[in-house]
This record gives sequence, structure tokens and C-alpha cells, in this order.
Amino acid sequence: MSKGRLEAFSDGVIAVAITLLVLDLVVPAPGLHHQTLAHNLGREWPRYVAYVVSFVTIGIIWINHHAVLRRLEEVDHTLLIVNLLVLLTIGVLPFATSLMATYLNESAGQHLAAAVYAGAFLLMSLAFSALNWQLLVGRPHLSAERLDEARRRAILRRRLTGVIPYLIATALAAVSAYATLAVCAAVAVFYALPASEP
Amino acid sequence: MSKGRLEAFSDGVIAVAITLLVLDLVVPAPGLHHQTLAHNLGREWPRYVAYVVSFVTIGIIWINHHAVLRRLEEVDHTLLIVNLLVLLTIGVLPFATSLMATYLNESAGQHLAAAVYAGAFLLMSLAFSALNWQLLVGRPHLSAERLDEARRRAILRRRLTGVIPYLIATALAAVSAYATLAVCAAVAVFYALPASEP
Amino acid sequence: MSKGRLEAFSDGVIAVAITLLVLDLVVPAPGLHHQTLAHNLGREWPRYVAYVVSFVTIGIIWINHHAVLRRLEEVDHTLLIVNLLVLLTIGVLPFATSLMATYLNESAGQHLAAAVYAGAFLLMSLAFSALNWQLLVGRPHLSAERLDEARRRAILRRRLTGVIPYLIATALAAVSAYATLAVCAAVAVFYALPASEP
Amino acid sequence: MSKGRLEAFSDGVIAVAITLLVLDLVVPAPGLHHQTLAHNLGREWPRYVAYVVSFVTIGIIWINHHAVLRRLEEVDHTLLIVNLLVLLTIGVLPFATSLMATYLNESAGQHLAAAVYAGAFLLMSLAFSALNWQLLVGRPHLSAERLDEARRRAILRRRLTGVIPYLIATALAAVSAYATLAVCAAVAVFYALPASEP
Repeated sequence: MSKGRLEAFSDGVIAVAITLLVLDLVVPAPGLHHQTLAHNLGREWPRYVAYVVSFVTIGIIWINHHAVLRRLEEVDHTLLIVNLLVLLTIGVLPFATSLMATYLNESAGQHLAAAVYAGAFLLMSLAFSALNWQLLVGRPHLSAERLDEARRRAILRRRLTGVIPYLIATALAAVSAYATLAVCAAVAVFYALPASEP
Repeated sequence: MSKGRLEAFSDGVIAVAITLLVLDLVVPAPGLHHQTLAHNLGREWPRYVAYVVSFVTIGIIWINHHAVLRRLEEVDHTLLIVNLLVLLTIGVLPFATSLMATYLNESAGQHLAAAVYAGAFLLMSLAFSALNWQLLVGRPHLSAERLDEARRRAILRRRLTGVIPYLIATALAAVSAYATLAVCAAVAVFYALPASEP
Repeated sequence: MSKGRLEAFSDGVIAVAITLLVLDLVVPAPGLHHQTLAHNLGREWPRYVAYVVSFVTIGIIWINHHAVLRRLEEVDHTLLIVNLLVLLTIGVLPFATSLMATYLNESAGQHLAAAVYAGAFLLMSLAFSALNWQLLVGRPHLSAERLDEARRRAILRRRLTGVIPYLIATALAAVSAYATLAVCAAVAVFYALPASEP
Repeated sequence: MSKGRLEAFSDGVIAVAITLLVLDLVVPAPGLHHQTLAHNLGREWPRYVAYVVSFVTIGIIWINHHAVLRRLEEVDHTLLIVNLLVLLTIGVLPFATSLMATYLNESAGQHLAAAVYAGAFLLMSLAFSALNWQLLVGRPHLSAERLDEARRRAILRRRLTGVIPYLIATALAAVSAYATLAVCAAVAVFYALPASEP
């Protein structure tokens, strides 16, 4: 079975998920709270920050997905299912982003919303690590080039290291929802920098 | 006529349908029912279960679609129309999922909602069987390799067997909506297991 | 410029538009109008009919788009813009479908809603005829095979004939919204039949 | 790394964004304001104008994106990130369009809404210029053919010239929201004309 449709389907799901994020940017009803539009837009700043952080994070996951599947030659049932789980965790992100943006400035619920947000990134990162593990350790015969042990370990270590910031961000939600958002934003900026090129 | 665009269009529709499922995960309005966010999220558990069941089911349909079209070399008008009916039944699933999730915990309407949910999967399964039948029996000249009678019958029998659980799930809706959901979930898990590899 | 991305982009827009139709299938709020779910779902029958008619119509437009671009070898700026207009008229269909479905059973507004619905199909059909004209008459040098005069005229006549039912459906809206819907449904069924294979 | 998936992903995001514009065309509730449907649809004219202007503008950006990537042979991390920023600014357009359409006829907020609308196009145009700069100046080794200095300058000058109308449109928002919309519409028409073929 060729990998062409796997890539096409994954690209499709990720492209729709990343674009659906815009539905969380709500247009304030005219005359809302008897305030100016500037005021009403201004108080929605968590939505704009969450939009950018989630957009860049999903974009980077797409880049990584791209890089990981590059070596692959064939796909099998297990790989398709593990990839489906990765897509499932990405598909949930517009909801997690909306939850976070809605509750960031609320006194009640902001800690839980932030934990769900970072927790969704954590799940996605774990599912993506499982995909990497399947490709490198579980079914190396599906790849075009066989990597040596050292290189394989380096990639897997790198991948697991990528999980840590989201663990920290999720734990930090108990302290401050703003800290959680800041860590998620920092991860997105870090991976967008040229130095983090794989 | 090549099958390239048929695959691309089908992948597109399935990718959008699977990702639109997230719109059913609603963010509770702050201060809703004067309850905590944890409580308000917790009572929405049918939405999370329905999301996962529908996501995995659509994902597996995509995998099967992939497997079925692999052998195909050309497409004709009838095939395009039968495939369109498959896509139509998939396109309806975000609505059926939302209906099920909304009514699962309601005393009135839960049986009907569950019947619509399993019935939508049943329809999809039947449409997909019709696509298989067209490919294997109706127009075998469009496939690259001609399967022998025994193999063809085995595939069609397998396909029709796949319809049975959804028949049971739809019938069970008269007894218990939870039982219907459990059967649909079990089907999704069964097909995701490595043993069910085609 | 190759036609690959033109097809990919068109497939994408059509796939999203056809799948967004599901957003018009609304889940009735529990306890709505103090009626049973069966009653509340039953009164939404115009939405189900409109969903199926629009889904099949967009699907057939996709099939025709596919058939028309098959001969093409290259694309130029004018062709991209005319194709964009076709996509614009397709992109509007989820709105027209929703308008029609909302007003079909209303005493006030049903004629206008039906006229907008059939009018949207009419516009789409005209834009698609313009695309055909560009390909066959305006810029035949972009096609792989040059059709003779008789064949070209036959295709264009066929295309313009396809506009007539939508003209009738739009005019009929002044008399009966149901008649308009019936004509649009009949056109969809006609083109889905094997006999209408190009 | 090949450019195939970059194009596929970009096409996907742009196709979803352009099609999501339809969600801004709202169906008036029956009996709204005790007015006829014709009246209720008529007062929503800013939504139809904004839909067409945004649809054509995004379509033209897609055509330009297509033209710019054509020369490219390989992609690297920086290019993927810059392209992601272009997609981010495109992804925001359904929100900016909805904001503009909602406030165009409101006495309060129309200037700000128009500034956000034209400002979003301005951002997109700047991000697209940055992508052009990266391709032509920053990493010319990724392109198949090396352009000479004069041609490169001509393309970049052309690109930057494209930013100016949106600067003017944004500034005009302080005077008249209608003038801003008119300039954005004029830009879309200008680039759609055959004479502006690259």
C-alpha cells in the first residue's frame, strides 16, 4: 500500500483543523455590553493569542509529520491506525483552543481550561511519539533507508524531549493559566526558529 | 478517466467530515447553570465518547476505501455516482453524532437519537458494500487484476458481515441507547486492532 | 503552468462546500416546542431533502468539472479566474441550501427563498458554461487534443441545454417553492442516471 | 524535502479558508424584525459584497502562491515557517470579513472594522512579500532556475507595489469604511483582469 493517500488524508485533516481555528475568533454583536467595538475586541485578546499559538503549533506538527513520513516507503494497518490517533488528537485542538480562550480571563475555570489546553498538546505529542516509535523501532522494514541504532535513538530521544514542555505546561495550569499559555507559546516559537531545523 | 481525482475528492470529503466532528464539542458558557467548569464539562461526556467513536469509524472507512480503490485502474460514471452516495452517507455523520451526543442523557428522545446514529453507520456500510459490489461484480473490467470467484465472494461476504453489527446496534436502540453506543464503539475498536488487517 | 494544482484546489473547495452542507442539519434542542424528538426531526424534512439535492448536484458538478479539465494540458490566468468564478458560485450553495430549507414551509418568504436556491444553481451552471466556452472556443490551444467543430458545438449545446432546467426552476419559484425543489431534484436524479454518462 | 506536500497543505488551507467565507452569509430567522425576507436579505448586502471581495482576493493569492512556488525545487525549514505565516494571515480572513460585514452599516465601529479588514489584507500581502523575498533573495539555491538581478528586482518591486493599495485602504478606514471596501474591491478586480497576468 502506497503512502500517497496517507499523506493526502493527513494533510487534509491538518489543513481543516488549522483553518477551523478561525471559528473561535468571534465577531462581537453590535452594541454588546454598550461598549465600543475597540473595547469589545480588546477584551477578546486571549482568543487572538490562542489562535496564533495553536496555528503555529499545528503548523509545526504538520512539518514534523512531513519529515517523519518522508523516509517511509509503505504503510500497513497498524501504521494507519496510529496515524489516525495522531489526527484524532490534532482534530480536538480547535475545541481545546476555544475552551482555553473562553476561560483564560474568567476567575472560575481558568486553571482547568488551561490544563485541558496543554493536556491536548501533550496527548498530541505522545501520539506523535508513538508514530515515530512505530516507524523507527516497530516496523523499520517499511522505511526506504534503515537508520543505525545511534541515529534512531537520537531521533526518539529528541521526540520524547519534545513531550516535556507540555508536561510542564499542563502541571503549571494548577498555578497559573497564563504561565501555561506562555510555555505553549514559547514551544511554538522555539520550533519555528531556524536553529531547530531537523 | 483516471482514479487520481476520485481519490483526491474522496479524501477531501472524508477529511473535512472527520474534522467537522470537533464542532460538536461545545465550550460551556462561563457561569452556565451556576456550576463549575469541571461539572459542566463532565456532563458532556457523551460528546467526547461520540467524538472518538465517530472519528475512529470514519477513519476506518477511509482506510477501507483506500484498500478497495487500490486495485482500480479506471473509473466510469456509475462508479463515480456510487462513490458519491458513499460520501453522502459519510457527510451526514457529524449531524448523526451530534444528535446522539445531545440526547444520550435525555429521558425523551434518546432511543430515536441512538437509532439515527447507528442507522447512519448502517447506511454508510450499505453504500460501501454497494461500491464493493460494483467494483468486484458489476464492473470488474475496471480493475487492474481480476480476482477469482472464491476471492471475490470472500471479500463480499466479509463486507456484508460488516453490516450486521450496525443492524444489531440500530435494533438495540429500542432497548437502550447506551447499548447502541457500546456496539458502535466495539466495532470501531475491533477494526482498529491489528488482527483485522485486510 | 500545470493543471495539477488547479485540480487540487478545485477539488478542495468543492469537497469543503459539499461537506459544509451538513451544518444545515440542525439538532433540535431537547424539549423544543414541548414536542417529541420524532416530531421535531420530522418537521425539518425540507433540510434533509435540500441536503440530498444539493449534495448530489455539487457531486455531479465535480464529476463534470473532472471531465472538462481532463483534456486540458496547460492553464493560463484567464482560465484560473473563470474557474475561480465557478468555485465562487459553488461556495455559495451551502447558504442557498440553508435559506431554501429554512423557508420552504414558511408562508412568508418561501417563493423568494426558492428563487435564490434555483438561482444559485443557475449562476453555477452559467459560470460552468463560461468555463466550457473558454476551454473549447476561447483557448483551444491549451487542450491536448483539438476537437473538430461539430464535436465542440455538440458539447456547448449540451452544456447550454443544462442551463434550461434551472431557468425553469427559478421561474417556477413565483408559483410554488415545492415545484422549484422538485425540478432541482429531478435534474440531480437525471444526471446521476447511467444514461447521462458523457 | 520535496515541495509536493507544501503545495498540497497550502492548497488545503486556502481552499478551506475560502469556503468558510460562506458561513458569514447568515440566513435571517423567519419573522425577523417583522419584515419580509426580501427586506431582511437586502439589508445584509455588505455580507454579499464582502463575500465576493474576499473570495476573489483569496483566489488571487492562491494563483500568486501557485506562480511563486512553481520555480521552487526544494523547501527548507525557514521556507516552511514563512509559508506557515502566509497561511496564518489567510486563515484569519473569514473573521476579518465577517467583522467588516457586520459593522459596515453600523454607526459605531465601522471605521475600526474596516481598518481590521484592510489591515488583514495588508498583513497577508506583507507575509506574501516576505515569502517572495525568501525565495528570490534569501534562498535562491532552492529554485530550479536562477533569475538574473534585474528580473528578481522587478518581481520584488511588483510585489511591494501590491502592498500599497492595502496601505491606502487601511488608512482610508479613518475617513470612510465604504471607501476602504471600494479600494479592496478595486484591487481584486484589477488582479482578476487578463492584463495583470504575471
